[in-house]
Amino acid sequence: MPVSPVKMADAIRVLSMDAVHRAKSGHQGMPMGMADVATVLWTKFLKFDASRPDWADRDRFVLSAGHGSMLLYALLHLTGFKAVTMDQVRNFRQWGSNTPGHPEFGHTPGVETTTGPLGQGIATAVGMAMAERHLAARFGEDLVDHRTWVIAGDGCLMEGVSHEAASIAGRFRLNRLTVLFDDNNTTIDGEATIAETGDQLARFKAYGWAVRAVDGHDHGKIAAALRWATKQDRPTLIACRTRISKGAGPKEGDPHSHGYTLFDGEIAEARKAMGWNLPPFELPEDLVKAWRRAGRKGVRTRKSWQGRLATSPKAGDFQRAMAGELPAGAFEALDAHIAAAVDARPAAATRQHSGSALDHLFPAIPEMIGGSADLTGSNNTFVKGTAAFDVPDYAGRYVHWGVREHGMAAAMNGMALHGGVIPFSGTFLVFSDYSRPAIRLGALMGARVVHVMTHDSIGVGEDGPTHQPVEHVASLRAMPNLLVFRPADAVETAECWKLAVSARTTPSVMALSRQKVPAVRTAASGENLSAHGAYQLAAAGSPARVTLFATGTEVAVALAARDLLEAEGIGTRVVSAPCWELFEAQTDRYKAAVIGETEVRAAVEAGVRMGWDRFIGADGIFVGMKGFGASAPAERLYEAFAITPQAVADAVRQKLG
Amino acid sequence: MPVSPVKMADAIRVLSMDAVHRAKSGHQGMPMGMADVATVLWTKFLKFDASRPDWADRDRFVLSAGHGSMLLYALLHLTGFKAVTMDQVRNFRQWGSNTPGHPEFGHTPGVETTTGPLGQGIATAVGMAMAERHLAARFGEDLVDHRTWVIAGDGCLMEGVSHEAASIAGRFRLNRLTVLFDDNNTTIDGEATIAETGDQLARFKAYGWAVRAVDGHDHGKIAAALRWATKQDRPTLIACRTRISKGAGPKEGDPHSHGYTLFDGEIAEARKAMGWNLPPFELPEDLVKAWRRAGRKGVRTRKSWQGRLATSPKAGDFQRAMAGELPAGAFEALDAHIAAAVDARPAAATRQHSGSALDHLFPAIPEMIGGSADLTGSNNTFVKGTAAFDVPDYAGRYVHWGVREHGMAAAMNGMALHGGVIPFSGTFLVFSDYSRPAIRLGALMGARVVHVMTHDSIGVGEDGPTHQPVEHVASLRAMPNLLVFRPADAVETAECWKLAVSARTTPSVMALSRQKVPAVRTAASGENLSAHGAYQLAAAGSPARVTLFATGTEVAVALAARDLLEAEGIGTRVVSAPCWELFEAQTDRYKAAVIGETEVRAAVEAGVRMGWDRFIGADGIFVGMKGFGASAPAERLYEAFAITPQAVADAVRQKLG
Repeated sequence: MPVSPVKMADAIRVLSMDAVHRAKSGHQGMPMGMADVATVLWTKFLKFDASRPDWADRDRFVLSAGHGSMLLYALLHLTGFKAVTMDQVRNFRQWGSNTPGHPEFGHTPGVETTTGPLGQGIATAVGMAMAERHLAARFGEDLVDHRTWVIAGDGCLMEGVSHEAASIAGRFRLNRLTVLFDDNNTTIDGEATIAETGDQLARFKAYGWAVRAVDGHDHGKIAAALRWATKQDRPTLIACRTRISKGAGPKEGDPHSHGYTLFDGEIAEARKAMGWNLPPFELPEDLVKAWRRAGRKGVRTRKSWQGRLATSPKAGDFQRAMAGELPAGAFEALDAHIAAAVDARPAAATRQHSGSALDHLFPAIPEMIGGSADLTGSNNTFVKGTAAFDVPDYAGRYVHWGVREHGMAAAMNGMALHGGVIPFSGTFLVFSDYSRPAIRLGALMGARVVHVMTHDSIGVGEDGPTHQPVEHVASLRAMPNLLVFRPADAVETAECWKLAVSARTTPSVMALSRQKVPAVRTAASGENLSAHGAYQLAAAGSPARVTLFATGTEVAVALAARDLLEAEGIGTRVVSAPCWELFEAQTDRYKAAVIGETEVRAAVEAGVRMGWDRFIGADGIFVGMKGFGASAPAERLYEAFAITPQAVADAVRQKLG
Repeated sequence: MPVSPVKMADAIRVLSMDAVHRAKSGHQGMPMGMADVATVLWTKFLKFDASRPDWADRDRFVLSAGHGSMLLYALLHLTGFKAVTMDQVRNFRQWGSNTPGHPEFGHTPGVETTTGPLGQGIATAVGMAMAERHLAARFGEDLVDHRTWVIAGDGCLMEGVSHEAASIAGRFRLNRLTVLFDDNNTTIDGEATIAETGDQLARFKAYGWAVRAVDGHDHGKIAAALRWATKQDRPTLIACRTRISKGAGPKEGDPHSHGYTLFDGEIAEARKAMGWNLPPFELPEDLVKAWRRAGRKGVRTRKSWQGRLATSPKAGDFQRAMAGELPAGAFEALDAHIAAAVDARPAAATRQHSGSALDHLFPAIPEMIGGSADLTGSNNTFVKGTAAFDVPDYAGRYVHWGVREHGMAAAMNGMALHGGVIPFSGTFLVFSDYSRPAIRLGALMGARVVHVMTHDSIGVGEDGPTHQPVEHVASLRAMPNLLVFRPADAVETAECWKLAVSARTTPSVMALSRQKVPAVRTAASGENLSAHGAYQLAAAGSPARVTLFATGTEVAVALAARDLLEAEGIGTRVVSAPCWELFEAQTDRYKAAVIGETEVRAAVEAGVRMGWDRFIGADGIFVGMKGFGASAPAERLYEAFAITPQAVADAVRQKLG
C-alpha cells in the first residue's frame, strides 16, 4: 500500500516539533504549516538527486523564510542527503552540527543559500534564476534547464528587498522562478494584519508576475498549482493559504506557535492526532522508504543529463565555468595592461582605471557578467560592445539593475552560488549601505562577487554629504571575509581587479574615485604588490624618521607630503595600503617591516580614523575626516577639510617638534 | 494682467538651467519636468508662509528625488524664503552656500528633510504624516491639521524602502499623504523601461492607496488631481506624466538631459522658446511679484492658527512638545529606578533592563512613541497598557511596523523632523544593516530617534551567524553623529536611555543583549557615569599593572578576569565604555586618566577589534571575535570563541611574561 502524502508531510511536522523541542529553540510553526506544500514540491516537482547535491542542472530550492530551517533539514534527511543524518537532526542548533539555527550555505551540502535575514532568500533566488537563463543561453538547454523554487513568508514579502527582487524578476520575465508564499496571516507580533493590509497577489501581478492562490493543505490543488507555475511565461507567485503549526492541536493557527512554544503535552497530543506512535526522532520504515524513493527519483534524469554532457562539445568549458576555474590566459591581457600602465603613467580617476582594467579582463573571462544600479556611465562598469542581459537575449553580459542596490547585491550572491558566472556590479560607495545586508550574506557564504563602488570620498564634490562616504570604507573593513580594495592608480586598480576575480571564496568591494589622480606606481615591480595588502611604495630619501600610510586617492597626497618633508631633510617613507584584509594575512615579519619603527607615523585617508590606529598607533597622526562632508567642488573640499600634502607635512613637523 | 502660471513654472526652469550651468554640475532635468506640478502645488495647495518656515501647522513638502534640488531652491527663492536669495541660487553647490547639491535639513530653512539617497524622502514623509495624525489626535485638529506632499521619481519607487514605506502608509491609511510621482520614463541609464516594466499605479493600489495619473504639464488637470487627492480617505499617488527637461528644446525628453548636459547654445535656444529675454539669474518683476504673493498666501491661515493656539488650553504642552523640550520631571521616575537598581542589583538581559527603563520613562514623556519591526517581545520595547498607533486611533503610542526595519528607521526620522514626538523602535542589532541608510540620514540631519537593537552579539546563541552581529557595533561607531550605547547592566542601561532621550540633535543606537548578565554598577555614583562615555568601574586592588576595557555583556567578563588576576596579586583596573562618542567628547585629561598607563591594556568585546586600538594601542590585547559566529547555545559560543575571564587572564599573564 502506498504511503499517504499526508503522512509524508506529517513526518516533517513531527521531526520539526521534536528537533525544536529538544533544542529548546527554533521554529516549528512554518515547517508544520508548509509541510504539505514542501512534500508535494519535493516528491513530485523538484528536480534533484539526493546523492548528488552538486549536480549542476538540479533545481534550486531556497528557503527564504530561513527560520523555518527544520523544514529544510527534515526534507534533506528524509530524502537521503548524507550530510543530514538523524543524529544531525537531533543536534539541531548545537555546536558543530550540520543543522544550525538558520540554513548555511557551504556548511551543509544540500543547502543552496544561507537564509534567515528576511527577504534575502527571494532576492538571492532571483540571481540564481538569472544565472540559469544566462547559462542556458550560453551552453544550451540540454545542459542547463532547471527551475528555482522559493518558500517565503509574510516577513520576506514585507522587506524592501522583496520589491527590488520581484521587480527585477518581472522585468526579465524569469519564468523558471516560482515563489511559494506561506500565506498564513501570521507574524511574530500577531496576525499579519496588525502591520500588513496590502494585497500581495495584486502587487506581484503589478511586477509582471503570474499569480494565484491555493489551499496550502490540499495536496491535489498544490500539485495543480505547481504544474500551472511550470507553464507560465513569467515568474510565478503562489499564495499558499496555510495555518501556522498545522497539526499542533490547540496551537495550530496561533501566532505564538511561530517559535519554540509547544509544551510536552501539546506535542504528545499532536502526535496522537496524527496517529504517530513512535518516540522522538524515529520514523516508520515505509515512510522512510517512500521519502528515500523521492530522493532518488532524479537519478535517471541526472544520468541522462550526464550522458548529454559527456558528448557535448561544450562540456569542458561548462565544467570549468561551473567549477569556478578561470580560463587559461585569463590575466594575459590585464598583465600586459599593467606593464603598459607602469610606463604610460596615466592620470585619471580610479573608476576610469577600473573601466580600463575591465576592458582587458571582461573579454578574457566569459563568466564575468557586469551591471550597475542605474549608474553605468559613472561606475565605468560597461565594456563597449557588450550586449545587455535581457529577455529573450539572456546571453547578454550586462545587467541594467535599475535603482536597486540591495536587490542587485543579493541577486549577485545568487548568481555566484548558482555557479558558472562571476558577477560584478556598480553603484556609488555611499550606497553600499543599501546593499549591506546582502554584502554581509555574501561574505558569510564566501560568494565570489565584486562590488564596484565609485565616488568613494569627499572627492564626490558638489553632490554633498548624502553622496560622500566618510565611514563606509571603515565600516566595510569591519566586516569579516570581505576584501575592501581602495587602489591608488591604474596599476593598483588592475592589480586589485586581478585579486578580486581570483578570490574564489571571498567577495570584494572596489572603492574607486570620481576624481582624477596621478600615477603613483611608476616602476616595474615584477609582482602584484597589492597582493600584500600594504607595501612600501616610496623609501625614505634620507634616514627614515617618518612613515606615511595612505590608500586610494590619498596616496598621491602622501607622496607629495613626502616631497615636502624630504626637501627639509626629513626622511619619509610612504606605504600604500590598498587592502587591509590581505595585509593582515601576511607574515608578522612582513607586517612589522611595512609598518616600521619611525619616530612618527601618520595616515592619510579621506574617511574616518576608525581602524587606522592599527597602523599608526593611538598616538599617530591621522589626516582625514572627522564628520560628514559638504557640497562644493572636490578640490575646495580637500582644502576645507585640510586633507592636503601641506596639512600632512605640518602635522608631522609639529610632532617631530 | 495676471501672470500666466506657465510663465511662473518657466521661472523654475530658467533658474534651474542657469544654476546648473553655472555650477557645472547638478540636475535640471527633473526641475524642468516637474516645474508645472510644483507651481500648481505651491501656488494653490501647499499650506505655508514663506516668512515662517517653522510654523508648526504648515504642510510638509518633501523632494524625495533630492538630486532635483534646484526645483526646491527655485521654489524657496521665488516664494520669498529669506535663506535662499538670488545670490544663494547663483552659488548653487558651492562651499558655504545655502544651496548644496542635495537639500539638507538644518542647513537651509525651508528644507524639511535631507534627500538624495533615493527612496529616503518618501519613507521619511510617511513618518511626518504619522506624526501629524498622532499630534492631531493628541492636540486636536484646530492645532494640527496639515498635509505631507512628496515629489518622487522612478528611482525612489524602484528602491526597496519605497515598498516598506508605502505599505506602512497604506496600513495606517495616511490620507494626508500625497506622492507626486514624476512619471517620465527616464532613468540615468536610459528609458526607465530598460530596468522597469512594473505598473506603479497597480502596485500602490495593492498597498491600499488611491491612485491616478495626470498630464504633468496641464495646470488645470494637475489642480484637479491635487484637489482629488485632498479628498481621499487613504494615501494618494498621482503619476504625473511629464517630459524630462521640459522646455529644453531638443534635449526635452532625452534621458541624457537628467544632469548637467545642456550647452550654452541649447540654453539660449530654450530661453528664446520660452520668450525669456533676461540674463541669467534675473527675473521679470511681475513674475517675482506673483510668486511672492504665493509665498504670502498662507499668512492669514497662519495668523488664524496662532489665534487658536493663543487661546488653546493645550498651547503650553503643544509648544513644549514641538520645541523638543522634555516635560518637567521627565527623569524623576527613571532616576529613582536607577537608585533602586544600584541596591537591588538585578541580573537580567540588558534588553529587559531597557524595558524596565522604558516603564519609567515612557509614561513621563508623552512625546515618546515606540514600536518594533515585528519583534516586540524580543526587543522589550512595549510598555504595558500602551495603545497601538492605528487607524482611526492615531493617539496610540506603539507602532507595529511590520518586518520593515528600513522603512521604520526612515519614518522615525520623519517623525523627529516633524517635531512633537520622540520616536524609538526595535529590531535585532544585526538588522541595523537593513536600516543603515536611514540611520545615516538621521545622523546627518541630527534627528532625535532611538534605535533599540537587541540580540547584540554571539550571545544570540542558536540563531547562528546570520543573526549574530560581530561587526555592527564597530560599523555604527564609524558613523559620525551617532551615539552608540552598549550598556552593561540595569544602571548603565537606564543611564544610557537618559542620555539618548536628552540628545536633541543626535540619534542613538542602544545595543542590548539577549542573554542575562549580572549587575556591575553596585555602588551609588551620584552622577550619570555613562555620560562620560567611559569610566573606571573598578580600581585595581594592588598597584595597577593592567587595565581591562569592556562594554555591555563583556563588562562582567572583565570584572571576573580582574578577580582572577587580583587573586594572583596582579593589580587590575576595569573600565566600562558604554559610549565611545561621549568619551571622545571629554577633556584630554579625563580621557588620558581613564585610559591610564598600565603595563598591559586589554579589551573584551564580543565583536571585532576594529576601533579598539584607540584604547589599547596597536599592541594591546583584544579578546573578541575574529570572524562570524556560529549556531549553538550562547554559553557554548563564549567558550568556543574564548571570550571568557580565563582567556582574558591568560592573555594578560602571557603578556606580563
